[in-house]
Amino acid sequence: MRLAELSHETGVASATLKYYLREGLLHAGEIESRTQASYDGTHVARVRLVRALVESGGLSLARAKAVIVALDDPPENRHDLLGVAQRALIEPDAADAGPDWTAFATAAVRGWGWDIEEGDPLLPLLGAQLRAVVDAGVELGDGTVLDQFAEAADRIAAADMSTLPEAPAAAIRQAIVGTVLTDPIVLTLRRLAQQHQSAIRFKQ
Amino acid sequence: MRLAELSHETGVASATLKYYLREGLLHAGEIESRTQASYDGTHVARVRLVRALVESGGLSLARAKAVIVALDDPPENRHDLLGVAQRALIEPDAADAGPDWTAFATAAVRGWGWDIEEGDPLLPLLGAQLRAVVDAGVELGDGTVLDQFAEAADRIAAADMSTLPEAPAAAIRQAIVGTVLTDPIVLTLRRLAQQHQSAIRFKQ
Repeated sequence: MRLAELSHETGVASATLKYYLREGLLHAGEIESRTQASYDGTHVARVRLVRALVESGGLSLARAKAVIVALDDPPENRHDLLGVAQRALIEPDAADAGPDWTAFATAAVRGWGWDIEEGDPLLPLLGAQLRAVVDAGVELGDGTVLDQFAEAADRIAAADMSTLPEAPAAAIRQAIVGTVLTDPIVLTLRRLAQQHQSAIRFKQ
Repeated sequence: MRLAELSHETGVASATLKYYLREGLLHAGEIESRTQASYDGTHVARVRLVRALVESGGLSLARAKAVIVALDDPPENRHDLLGVAQRALIEPDAADAGPDWTAFATAAVRGWGWDIEEGDPLLPLLGAQLRAVVDAGVELGDGTVLDQFAEAADRIAAADMSTLPEAPAAAIRQAIVGTVLTDPIVLTLRRLAQQHQSAIRFKQ
């Protein structure tokens, strides 16, 4: 199909599709002449994926591109695959509150017995997020709340792992797209569960 | 203190502080003359709160303002208080995928035995988020993954409730600011827990 048809099929403007092509978010079509290229079902699927990541998942176009690159070249080892997926999702300018907060976050994670590699970029990110909470005077109940969050997160992660397909390409897609698109669901469920817990405790 | 001192104390530019004053994100100082006003510790605390909500919590300025309004006038009833807190956090243009998806989300929530009011704006939001996941072909294991997410969210919410202070003003602050600033922590813990679960299953 021509670019105009790809636009019609996906509901994405031709100018936006050209931008995706220039930025490497969409693979080139088959060249038919100096001014014509032809696109197929793989292009439709890719455009829909980019829209899902950006619109529903809230990723920046730069993060969406990192995800696309990871999807196009998945590592064979399933544990490495998850690391690649997660690194694709972290903004390069992610917050870092310095070595003390990273050490604090690392100690918490070690306390839960989690097997996380030294230098994992999620540790300074967690440190910065904890610092923002502490700075704002939010109550964490001497860390017991954080422990309960960790236990809940571990259950979510176990559910995540249960859905990973065998094939590397399908597994990295599920790991990345599944995590990005279900993050908002986890947060909405948290709010609904707060209402449920509040009704149990306080409803008259 | 003068505006320049408030700027120095909070690290927020005077022009930004004037913008906050115009938009109602910051309460007016005490008028001292036609061109001078005086600010105190309540202004320092408010500016820091707005920065935390916007920079660490990722709220839009419009959402931050809704939060400020709710904080300034908390309802007495503790269950109503949570509803006010949650409505302040929902973007007015939040996604809605139509009545079928809202009904689907409502049925899921009822299935967990959660006491959520008809017409709660979180239900169409959850419906739209579920639709995005289904449209992207993300595997939810016939709904068992969603059930496991709900169980984990319920544990998070129980931890949230355990930290609510008695006084309404302090409780609504903890409900709103605590939720907004710990949302990113929940998502980071999910990714770290994925690595932990992956290491258990796949590390060689």
